[in-house]
Amino acid sequence: MRTLRVIGIGTGDPEHLTLQAVQALADVDVVFVLDKGADTDDLVALRRTICARHIRDDYRLVVAQDPPRERRPADYAATVEAWHAARADLLGGLIAANLGAGEVGAFLVWGDPALYDSTLRILERILARDAGAFAYTVIPGISSVQMLAAAHRIPLNRIGGAVHITTGRAIADGLPEGVGSVVVMLDADPRFDHLDPDLTIHWGAYLGSPDQLLIAGRLGTVGPEIRLQRAAARSRHGWIMDVYLLQAP
Amino acid sequence: MRTLRVIGIGTGDPEHLTLQAVQALADVDVVFVLDKGADTDDLVALRRTICARHIRDDYRLVVAQDPPRERRPADYAATVEAWHAARADLLGGLIAANLGAGEVGAFLVWGDPALYDSTLRILERILARDAGAFAYTVIPGISSVQMLAAAHRIPLNRIGGAVHITTGRAIADGLPEGVGSVVVMLDADPRFDHLDPDLTIHWGAYLGSPDQLLIAGRLGTVGPEIRLQRAAARSRHGWIMDVYLLQAP
Repeated sequence: MRTLRVIGIGTGDPEHLTLQAVQALADVDVVFVLDKGADTDDLVALRRTICARHIRDDYRLVVAQDPPRERRPADYAATVEAWHAARADLLGGLIAANLGAGEVGAFLVWGDPALYDSTLRILERILARDAGAFAYTVIPGISSVQMLAAAHRIPLNRIGGAVHITTGRAIADGLPEGVGSVVVMLDADPRFDHLDPDLTIHWGAYLGSPDQLLIAGRLGTVGPEIRLQRAAARSRHGWIMDVYLLQAP
Repeated sequence: MRTLRVIGIGTGDPEHLTLQAVQALADVDVVFVLDKGADTDDLVALRRTICARHIRDDYRLVVAQDPPRERRPADYAATVEAWHAARADLLGGLIAANLGAGEVGAFLVWGDPALYDSTLRILERILARDAGAFAYTVIPGISSVQMLAAAHRIPLNRIGGAVHITTGRAIADGLPEGVGSVVVMLDADPRFDHLDPDLTIHWGAYLGSPDQLLIAGRLGTVGPEIRLQRAAARSRHGWIMDVYLLQAP
């Protein structure tokens, strides 16, 4: 039997690996990487550090160039569907070709595999066609949401209140009603103009890394500063990963 | 200066500690424990295992008996407020009395300190009265929400969709409108009768531990089975910690 492990590796600090992840890496034969284009030199270097520290020297690295994806599709769900199908074709072939019987493969996922990552969906697609292709397990990792809260030293929820984790796209028309805490991920161009300026924002970028940036305050006051710093950092690094929490005043 | 570290330790598997948490435990002088009554023998034993493995032998353990709390208060917010104030008094005194200048203290928090845990709020209360009482940092940990998703090998979000994390209390009148994925924590007596039986549920208890229980399926079909297994397990163990994910069909 072929075995795959989907391992959450945190968001920028190799020390965020869990002991379980370290153990799961120790006997890996093949590391599969889905190169999403967003994986810049910094991220590739960080992943390489993790592999070099925790996997034995003779592991093999298989990098899949991600199929192209329309960035501003008219029909989001259908476009993602087609893109996942293409990735399943690609990865299914790579796993069959590169992972021998009895070997162990690993997917290293930034943050946690359960949050806005498609690896699990793609593996399930491959198994739907060929149930015996491999067995797999999932190892959770520290997500950017947790890193944001830890870096700012704040709870995500108000006392007894809900935490709503969503995307930049989903709050384009405003925040959901009656939720005290909203975490926004995957916001490629945060605009705060349409939101209540009296909201409190906690923002973070490159969380866990030496380049970590943190800004917090009243949205109407610090929002413009966040946009400025974000643009400057993105142009300096060539990429940015950030997340923010909005809370009612 | 006195230093405190608030360290997330996961939910039932000592291997869920991060390398950062292991490092943060290494030079701890005093471990502070807020005994909430819910900390049964199993949990005390697990915490003891973590301390024995990662802290040097001569650390000191300070256990605070949590102030009594009304379990079904008429005014939830006011009751929690009074309870936090009492805990801040208690802990502030214990820290002052037990943590020497230059020493390092640690709070070991189940799951992640950012989610439905009051340690950070209580430390901020103590600092609001005496800003120089201590410095502190927060180290994120794997939450039960992540463990649930990893054990079931599922993403929490639907493609592009939001994840709403809430409490049993908050869904007593039904789920929030228009959210594809709702995670329910702190539900002392899950009743599913008022919810759409066609929802999909992923339920887990004692996540990460050898006693882990998992049930998934259509809510109307597996809901009664979850209630039965939950009651049996609670009576067998004397306690239960569980969490579930509800998703639109």
